[in-house]
Amino acid sequence: MEDKILLGHGSGGLLTHQLIEEVFMPAFGDSPLKTMDDATLLNVEGHIVVSTDTFTVNPLFFPGGDIGKLAVNGTVNDVAVSTGKPLYLTVGFVIEEGFPIADLKKIVMSMKEAAERVGVKIVAGDTKVVEKGKADGVYINTTGIGIYEGLGKLASEPIKPGDKVIVSGPIGDHAATIMINRENLGITADIQSDCGPVVDIVKKALEVGGVKWMRDPTRGGVGTTLNELVLGRDFGVLLFEDSIPIRDEVRGISELLGIDPLYMACEGRVLLVVEEDMADRVLEAIKGLPEAKDSAIIGEIEDKHPGKVRLKTRWAERFVPMLPGQQLPRIC
Amino acid sequence: MEDKILLGHGSGGLLTHQLIEEVFMPAFGDSPLKTMDDATLLNVEGHIVVSTDTFTVNPLFFPGGDIGKLAVNGTVNDVAVSTGKPLYLTVGFVIEEGFPIADLKKIVMSMKEAAERVGVKIVAGDTKVVEKGKADGVYINTTGIGIYEGLGKLASEPIKPGDKVIVSGPIGDHAATIMINRENLGITADIQSDCGPVVDIVKKALEVGGVKWMRDPTRGGVGTTLNELVLGRDFGVLLFEDSIPIRDEVRGISELLGIDPLYMACEGRVLLVVEEDMADRVLEAIKGLPEAKDSAIIGEIEDKHPGKVRLKTRWAERFVPMLPGQQLPRIC
Repeated sequence: MEDKILLGHGSGGLLTHQLIEEVFMPAFGDSPLKTMDDATLLNVEGHIVVSTDTFTVNPLFFPGGDIGKLAVNGTVNDVAVSTGKPLYLTVGFVIEEGFPIADLKKIVMSMKEAAERVGVKIVAGDTKVVEKGKADGVYINTTGIGIYEGLGKLASEPIKPGDKVIVSGPIGDHAATIMINRENLGITADIQSDCGPVVDIVKKALEVGGVKWMRDPTRGGVGTTLNELVLGRDFGVLLFEDSIPIRDEVRGISELLGIDPLYMACEGRVLLVVEEDMADRVLEAIKGLPEAKDSAIIGEIEDKHPGKVRLKTRWAERFVPMLPGQQLPRIC
Repeated sequence: MEDKILLGHGSGGLLTHQLIEEVFMPAFGDSPLKTMDDATLLNVEGHIVVSTDTFTVNPLFFPGGDIGKLAVNGTVNDVAVSTGKPLYLTVGFVIEEGFPIADLKKIVMSMKEAAERVGVKIVAGDTKVVEKGKADGVYINTTGIGIYEGLGKLASEPIKPGDKVIVSGPIGDHAATIMINRENLGITADIQSDCGPVVDIVKKALEVGGVKWMRDPTRGGVGTTLNELVLGRDFGVLLFEDSIPIRDEVRGISELLGIDPLYMACEGRVLLVVEEDMADRVLEAIKGLPEAKDSAIIGEIEDKHPGKVRLKTRWAERFVPMLPGQQLPRIC
């Protein structure tokens, strides 16, 4: 087999079939993919949760993960925080001509591992090849399908003042890792992406009860995600700066680059709004999971400034709007 | 609003929200998309058919369609030929920085029209923006979900010698259109892409009965698609060159470019294998649809050369292998 991707690997003909046989089958071979059909038959009963995301992260490989791991967990997490039990994933590759097949194999094996870890099957795929200079290595779309399990698991009470906001770990690890590994800044820091599944955290929190809302703060960070929560609603969020877990390294990078860590993407964290009197129990429960051991209550719902997110610092309070511009493109 | 796509439109922050409000909502606004959630809840009972495809066609606009129309019909057709009733579509955009928002609006409106024509809802979306020179305008992934309806509709008998191969119209229109509109060849021809849905053709054929297999001959064309049918099976296909509908313009282009029309992609045709004694009835039935009026029986199943596709010309017979190299990249 060639060692680089050729345009012919996207022809739909012989080279495409070879690529499927030699790269995709070893990773996804026990799935319906092996029929090489254009569509896949699945057995699903009831309500399903569907989510789609395209990943264009640069660099493709970074401490803590790669685009393959990110593409699986990113979509799996979107399904999970919507109280779907993730079951199936489709994968669409856009590959740049000349991309090393060895790198593609690494990415595909990462996807296999990430999918197996959360019990998700990769059930359909597609590969397109574009000319050199018309992509940047590889872009991956994943679309996830899960069974909706929220009914009876999410608290039925509406969100109200006093409810607590929990984050499942330090914020900004992913964005900070991408930033210093991408820009040639000469910054070295002992930090890696938090890229990983939030499936077990979500499950544990729902078991305890009192959870009213969940979301993973990816692009746009905690600041933007909480703005999406309060947009047009009759409540706001008050964050306590001192309570927000941030690694020293991430804070340092954010200060060096002049970027508010509240806008720095996480890829393995979940934000939860929990009933006031259940918050401590949810917090304790999820802290038992290694990936959520640094969880913290970082704020609460308030009715003082509906539709707004505010940050209370040691000395003052300020509004946190949605991320206004572009931080760094292709963080995910 | 800006008139060109900025990197910030992919930030997940304020500009992304503006893009959703001003470009995507007017087209897909009556869908669950409007909640701007990261996942969508759907009600689906039974077996579902799932298919994914990324579209990188160049040029983005061509006679007979554009990348938006293609992206909807391409995936809808994959679901339909798998005897799924297409219901839902997710959409993932990768957009190059600087892409005109007016063009994006045109593409999105094409998607809306194509989806409405076949009664499919666009239920989830994602937009990424990459730096200028890291894509070629826009790439679109669509993932389709349909309800499986094949049980009891596909003939239960296995494929056997004597079964007929039907194509629902002239082959190669899409590829020929893309080729002459892309390469600066100075060829003008009154031809347009066949890009369109095969949903009604499939429905009509299944109503008549005797259909054993269906597939849309896109990338790799009729030649490659039939090779996929016979691969590893105990039968082959014999095609009759004189029976294969090809427009004079397409034949002319294929001769000028030295490309076998059997490898030229269609985007609105379906290949069917039908029981011998039902073939004429299926043919007559689908010919009643305007998009299939030039349908023809183009070959039959044979056991003489298992696993092979052969072409009988006026003077000789030859094997038709899978498309061996690359015809023209980014045909779809």
